[in-house]
Amino acid sequence: MIIFFEKDIDIEDALDKIIYISEINFSHFNFGENYKGIYISEDIDKEFILKNIDGIREMVQVNKPYKFVSREFKKEDTIVHIGNVKIGGEHFETIGGPCSFENEDGFMEIAKNLKEFGVKIVRGGAFKPRTSPYFFQGIGKDALKIMRRITLELDLKLVSEIVSTEDIEVFNEYVDIFQVGARNMQNFELLKKLGKCNKPILLKRGFSATIEEFLLSAEYIVSGGNMNVILCERGIRTFEKSTRNTLDISAVPVIKKLSHLPIIVDPSHASGRFDLVESLALASVSAGCDGIMVEVHNDPENALSDGCQSLKFKRFYNMNKKIHKIRKSLF
Amino acid sequence: MIIFFEKDIDIEDALDKIIYISEINFSHFNFGENYKGIYISEDIDKEFILKNIDGIREMVQVNKPYKFVSREFKKEDTIVHIGNVKIGGEHFETIGGPCSFENEDGFMEIAKNLKEFGVKIVRGGAFKPRTSPYFFQGIGKDALKIMRRITLELDLKLVSEIVSTEDIEVFNEYVDIFQVGARNMQNFELLKKLGKCNKPILLKRGFSATIEEFLLSAEYIVSGGNMNVILCERGIRTFEKSTRNTLDISAVPVIKKLSHLPIIVDPSHASGRFDLVESLALASVSAGCDGIMVEVHNDPENALSDGCQSLKFKRFYNMNKKIHKIRKSLF
Amino acid sequence: MIIFFEKDIDIEDALDKIIYISEINFSHFNFGENYKGIYISEDIDKEFILKNIDGIREMVQVNKPYKFVSREFKKEDTIVHIGNVKIGGEHFETIGGPCSFENEDGFMEIAKNLKEFGVKIVRGGAFKPRTSPYFFQGIGKDALKIMRRITLELDLKLVSEIVSTEDIEVFNEYVDIFQVGARNMQNFELLKKLGKCNKPILLKRGFSATIEEFLLSAEYIVSGGNMNVILCERGIRTFEKSTRNTLDISAVPVIKKLSHLPIIVDPSHASGRFDLVESLALASVSAGCDGIMVEVHNDPENALSDGCQSLKFKRFYNMNKKIHKIRKSLF
Amino acid sequence: MIIFFEKDIDIEDALDKIIYISEINFSHFNFGENYKGIYISEDIDKEFILKNIDGIREMVQVNKPYKFVSREFKKEDTIVHIGNVKIGGEHFETIGGPCSFENEDGFMEIAKNLKEFGVKIVRGGAFKPRTSPYFFQGIGKDALKIMRRITLELDLKLVSEIVSTEDIEVFNEYVDIFQVGARNMQNFELLKKLGKCNKPILLKRGFSATIEEFLLSAEYIVSGGNMNVILCERGIRTFEKSTRNTLDISAVPVIKKLSHLPIIVDPSHASGRFDLVESLALASVSAGCDGIMVEVHNDPENALSDGCQSLKFKRFYNMNKKIHKIRKSLF
Repeated sequence: MIIFFEKDIDIEDALDKIIYISEINFSHFNFGENYKGIYISEDIDKEFILKNIDGIREMVQVNKPYKFVSREFKKEDTIVHIGNVKIGGEHFETIGGPCSFENEDGFMEIAKNLKEFGVKIVRGGAFKPRTSPYFFQGIGKDALKIMRRITLELDLKLVSEIVSTEDIEVFNEYVDIFQVGARNMQNFELLKKLGKCNKPILLKRGFSATIEEFLLSAEYIVSGGNMNVILCERGIRTFEKSTRNTLDISAVPVIKKLSHLPIIVDPSHASGRFDLVESLALASVSAGCDGIMVEVHNDPENALSDGCQSLKFKRFYNMNKKIHKIRKSLF
Repeated sequence: MIIFFEKDIDIEDALDKIIYISEINFSHFNFGENYKGIYISEDIDKEFILKNIDGIREMVQVNKPYKFVSREFKKEDTIVHIGNVKIGGEHFETIGGPCSFENEDGFMEIAKNLKEFGVKIVRGGAFKPRTSPYFFQGIGKDALKIMRRITLELDLKLVSEIVSTEDIEVFNEYVDIFQVGARNMQNFELLKKLGKCNKPILLKRGFSATIEEFLLSAEYIVSGGNMNVILCERGIRTFEKSTRNTLDISAVPVIKKLSHLPIIVDPSHASGRFDLVESLALASVSAGCDGIMVEVHNDPENALSDGCQSLKFKRFYNMNKKIHKIRKSLF
Repeated sequence: MIIFFEKDIDIEDALDKIIYISEINFSHFNFGENYKGIYISEDIDKEFILKNIDGIREMVQVNKPYKFVSREFKKEDTIVHIGNVKIGGEHFETIGGPCSFENEDGFMEIAKNLKEFGVKIVRGGAFKPRTSPYFFQGIGKDALKIMRRITLELDLKLVSEIVSTEDIEVFNEYVDIFQVGARNMQNFELLKKLGKCNKPILLKRGFSATIEEFLLSAEYIVSGGNMNVILCERGIRTFEKSTRNTLDISAVPVIKKLSHLPIIVDPSHASGRFDLVESLALASVSAGCDGIMVEVHNDPENALSDGCQSLKFKRFYNMNKKIHKIRKSLF
Repeated sequence: MIIFFEKDIDIEDALDKIIYISEINFSHFNFGENYKGIYISEDIDKEFILKNIDGIREMVQVNKPYKFVSREFKKEDTIVHIGNVKIGGEHFETIGGPCSFENEDGFMEIAKNLKEFGVKIVRGGAFKPRTSPYFFQGIGKDALKIMRRITLELDLKLVSEIVSTEDIEVFNEYVDIFQVGARNMQNFELLKKLGKCNKPILLKRGFSATIEEFLLSAEYIVSGGNMNVILCERGIRTFEKSTRNTLDISAVPVIKKLSHLPIIVDPSHASGRFDLVESLALASVSAGCDGIMVEVHNDPENALSDGCQSLKFKRFYNMNKKIHKIRKSLF
């Protein structure tokens, strides 16, 4: 049950009272004037609450296991603001950049090219969660600093993956969007803490997570108070081996129906093959996603990670042009 | 190894000679003047054959396990002709119709509407392979007869699923395209016999078949002599349960690279949900498929099978319009 | 709804009457005096039937989608008789033999050795459903003839895989148990015809079939009148690649709860690795299966198919000894 | 490449020299006198190292992507010591206890009963990683304290799940074995820190992790210096829905061949059904595992988490008796 309060109510007071008169657990949630609300368990005595708590505007039964991220709770699309850049609703963005930050010159070259192609958000890994301890683990904090400097210089937004609660402070200083990778989608301690941040979170679907689990992980963040979650489909694990993962294209329209959060697609990780990225990106756009995130590299053959799925500039440019054609013809 | 012969060679003679001088097994294949050829095992002594057999134009090493269906064997797209209707290359078709034929009036109404929307090929099940023996099994031969009459009357092509080698003759009489369903993709006895037919075969991917296995099943048909195979991606089985199957959208560009055969997509079976069909159809078109096959019904709520994934006319019409917009903008 | 009749009732008469007074479809089933019964759809008017049809002993609601194969229908374990050999209930058998019959001497050697180790049923493929048309397809009818002669000579039972309805007659003549392979588990036309045979059917689980689908395929056979079905778990398709398939060991106790039919396990196909066969066989026995079927070959390194998963005689012997130890300690 | 040094060498000196003369990265590893060694990348110049570094006993090429956990590196089984309790080699343990610690009396009752049945290690969750933020999240540190007190009183070892690097200190104080749950198997930051602990780690396989990824996660811990890793198979995610997960029984013999680390099985989470736990436990024992971990509860119907997969005392007792029978008959 979600209880919405009148705009002018002092919600802390109301919460105290609810705690006092009942003994129920609840999640507090407050996003903007229109969504002052709390979630309490469904088996509450509705009449009892209504009689004892003032200032209740509406009580909404949410049938899905996730509450605040559901369309039942909020009908209109959420638009996530990253400064003056927007994702969601009518706002579409193509995000590009290298898998890992490797060196200043390389990143500058990539960022400049993307900027020229109209890209507003760049990605770059500093802390890399790698399957093997013997793989390149990323350059860490220094990479964040340099990427921050370059993106500020070029007026670009920066997204980078966070892998530990201990790095939240440093990420707060250097990036615009915190990315939670597929392997950490159910790192609930991290999600809980990100719910207390006020920067946007790009949450990737675990490669074996159901859509319901994916939305429940988003709920961990949103129920903590941070509504700025961008979902990202990046392929699921199946028996098929011609692609690194299987892009679950249906996730786009399914999530659009179930949730108000924006959903973008990462065809680079989904396929693991640069020669499939364009087809999958165009498919995802046509399926209705709110953005595309792809790996772009100035020299894929010599990349320290994921080179085989990175686009060169020209391929990126061509893909992006076609994306805009489709969006113009369809939406 | 594939051996191509000169146009004017008597291939039967050449075969006899190969059998005589070696003791190897081979598949004979002969499609049109340009593809007079045979496939023999890769470990053959190339020099020996060249010295002893006349009229060899070229010997091609094919590295993939499938041979005649591979791009290595034939670079240009295969265009399948169904009378004057074409699929493959630049030719795209949207196929529609009910899951099962139920009665004459219903089928006539569906077929007329589709015809009006520009559809040239209609589907309709007569023999239904159903998971349970207690589900509706289709009306059988009588259904084929009526559908044949109606489609001739409306100048439409008919595709229907064949489930047994024993029905080949009757299908030959009544349908334009033989459909092999997902559950029979590895019914090799059926595939072998269809390789001897000269009508086009629409081969659906098994819901747990890898792309390689899918192409090897096509190879069963093609190596038998029937090049007119249309592949159909219809979703694979995964852990995700919000859709009936998971549409493997990547299969479209992957197969385009591996094979010259046309590949269409069935978003109805892939999703099992009529409300997702349009999104998945548009995604598939953008990914580069050669056609879409969807279930359309005049009264989905009362359909005897698969009603929940069938489109009403209006939805079909809207989807088809958008498909053409995308194709116009992209290709 | 399953209607059981009194022992002395003329069931044909009863059926005629049911058809006459209602217009419902039903499956007729009649196995022995104790199971004279028919299955009719669950939404029948029970009172109406009871009032109008004589000789009804009991009407049983079966909630599972499969009816005659369910424990709801029949509580005690079914024991399948292959001549004087039994599988099910307290009767356990280890079945061995080559993947494919290759030549008379080899098969004789294998069969003799297995006989000596106490084996009563041998397997041997004559018609092989192979993923690629270029793989060894089996020797066919001649193989059946020779295997029949040898097994009669050694007083062994023979199981071999049938891949087409057209071969039923020849199988009837030469084998004791018809095997339906994983790829044909949903070849419903074949299943329907096997329901009319009176020889035991060994039905393998499709590598992507759910347990429910597996039991529904068995229902196709049983509802046709042939109760002698032996189920066989042989691994399912997953993302894990260190084994050819993933043995779904849970299927054994799950199926034991859901069905009265015997269930055996094939660890050779499940793993694809001879070095895992013993461990998986012992695990399956401990999980409660009614038999084990493994591939045994006199010369695995040179086998024409599946050599890498075939046991040599000594390994088979050791495994079998341990199987008996476990059965003695547990059951 | 793994370099083993002579027993009496000062390894720090050797490392300094290697760093000085080459510029290669390496993992340092030192377990006991016999395994003084380091791992360095495979493309090292072997001759160069041998010539320049003294005290090298042996250089071993390890072909697997994981190094220190592989059988190539260490042939004999690793025996993990938890005080005087051992797991691995010939030492088998059945671990039991509730999914979550709920209250003192309940835990005491469970622990006492298990103690009486011969159990030496009990499990109990304090911090629960739950799919939904609205599910019971565990009692936290207080639960650890009480469980510590009770297990000390009863002379039992305690295993509990850690979900955050921030809790390492408190776990160090209160538990004997740190459990890493399936959802954190690729929380590499946590694994790295656990590599610096000197308590045993029970590492559960992620429900979609390949065996190779599982061993690589173990490598993260072991290459950090902590050899005391117990692997735990607990089911993988597949399409089959009659069980919560699919127990990958083959993982037991496969891992035994690939690694020297002990491997135990958790049939409770694998199946999600108490009525399957015994069958799967017996199967796992027969497949060669080094231990079983099951959920046991005094009142499963009212458990706050996972009640439906928890055993009552009597079932546990019966299962355990059969486990010992099998081990006696087989090993």
